This record gives sequence, structure tokens and C-alpha cells, in this order.
Amino acid sequence: MYAVNYHEREEIEVTLAGSQKTTVRWLVGKRTGAKTYAMRLFDIKPGGIIPLHEHAEEHEIFVLQGQAKIIGGNDGDIAKKDDVVFVPSNQPHGYDNTEGTESFRFICVIPLLDNE
Amino acid sequence: MYAVNYHEREEIEVTLAGSQKTTVRWLVGKRTGAKTYAMRLFDIKPGGIIPLHEHAEEHEIFVLQGQAKIIGGNDGDIAKKDDVVFVPSNQPHGYDNTEGTESFRFICVIPLLDNE
Repeated sequence: MYAVNYHEREEIEVTLAGSQKTTVRWLVGKRTGAKTYAMRLFDIKPGGIIPLHEHAEEHEIFVLQGQAKIIGGNDGDIAKKDDVVFVPSNQPHGYDNTEGTESFRFICVIPLLDNE
Repeated sequence: MYAVNYHEREEIEVTLAGSQKTTVRWLVGKRTGAKTYAMRLFDIKPGGIIPLHEHAEEHEIFVLQGQAKIIGGNDGDIAKKDDVVFVPSNQPHGYDNTEGTESFRFICVIPLLDNE
């Protein structure tokens, strides 16, 4: 068992799918105990975006701070602090904070399908 | 895909293992999209506790608010806001907020081992 502040996890720039001004920290990954799913913390700075993309892994998300437009859902969908977001397997999705004034920060849990 | 405020999920009293002043909301459960792991939100009110217990399911936890003593770890271990806690499979654990002055609120992700 361990308890660590999330800032102790390395903050890594996200470049996937043309993302901008976005970082990820692997809070619980394979090297830190994850068996079949991993917990990450994403931070999309003001002006940042994770563009539309898709993959087999579903997402279970909890928003810690800020708000962003959800890309790939219904028009006008916003995810904001205290929201739970679920993205099914293979559904295109993205998060747009290009017009935001604070970081959009969220927990995102993902299955380790390839056992990485 | 959906986005809902966590307050839209039913708040259920936890009685497992003699827990007191503790509630759980299943944010993403089997009926709301979870395939192999579920996301819950626990709230241990001031004076509350989840006593020492164990089970095969590991926990990946993120603390949203407050602090609590971790039972079953090292003496004096505290989990507090912005901490990541990992509880391995079959390790006895619990959370003690009996001396706290605010709710200890955390996200807890658990595998659906029995496919419930």
C-alpha cells in the first residue's frame, strides 16, 4: 500500500492526436501496481486541446477542476468540475479547452489492454 | 458517451465491515458502462470510519477532499487531498476519519472480479 501526492508523479507532455498544452501523470500505472487498469491525471491548460481520436480502451473520467467542451458527443456538451464522463470503447472523443481561462484537470482510468 | 454531475448518482449508506458515517456513489458501474472496473465516490463524514477489512480487489484511489488515517499501512500514514493511494489485492486496509473535521472524500476504482 502507498499514498503519494500526485505531484510526485512525472508530468509528461501529451502529443497524441495533435494535442496541445496538455500533460499527463500516470498516478497508478503498471510499474506502480496497476494490474488491469491504470489511473492517470490529465491537465489541459487554457488554450489547450486533445483533438478527436478513438481507441478500443473505454474511459472512466472524473473532473477535478475547470471545464471543457466535449468533442464527439452531443453539440454543446460541456464537462466541468465534479462531472463523471464515460467514453465507451471505440467512440471518437476529445476535449477542447481552447477558450478556457483555467486548467481542465481530470482523472482518467483506462484498461491496460495491451498489458503495457 | 455521457457526462453527469456526481450528485446525480444515488448516495448509498455503507455498512460493510462496520463502517460508520460513510456513503458511496457508483459513478460508473456495470449498469452505466463499466466493463471490467468501476469508479465509485466515497464520503466518510467527520467522525466516520471504514474499519480494517480485506478482499481480492485492489484499489486505485484519488483523494478529493479532507484527510484520514490509513488503517493497515505504516503507523501514522495519512491520506489527504491530492494523494493517490494504491491498495494491493488482499491487503487489509481501512480509513479513519473519527477525529476529522471535514468529509474525507475520494474516488476509488475497483475491478469487477465477480462481474457484478
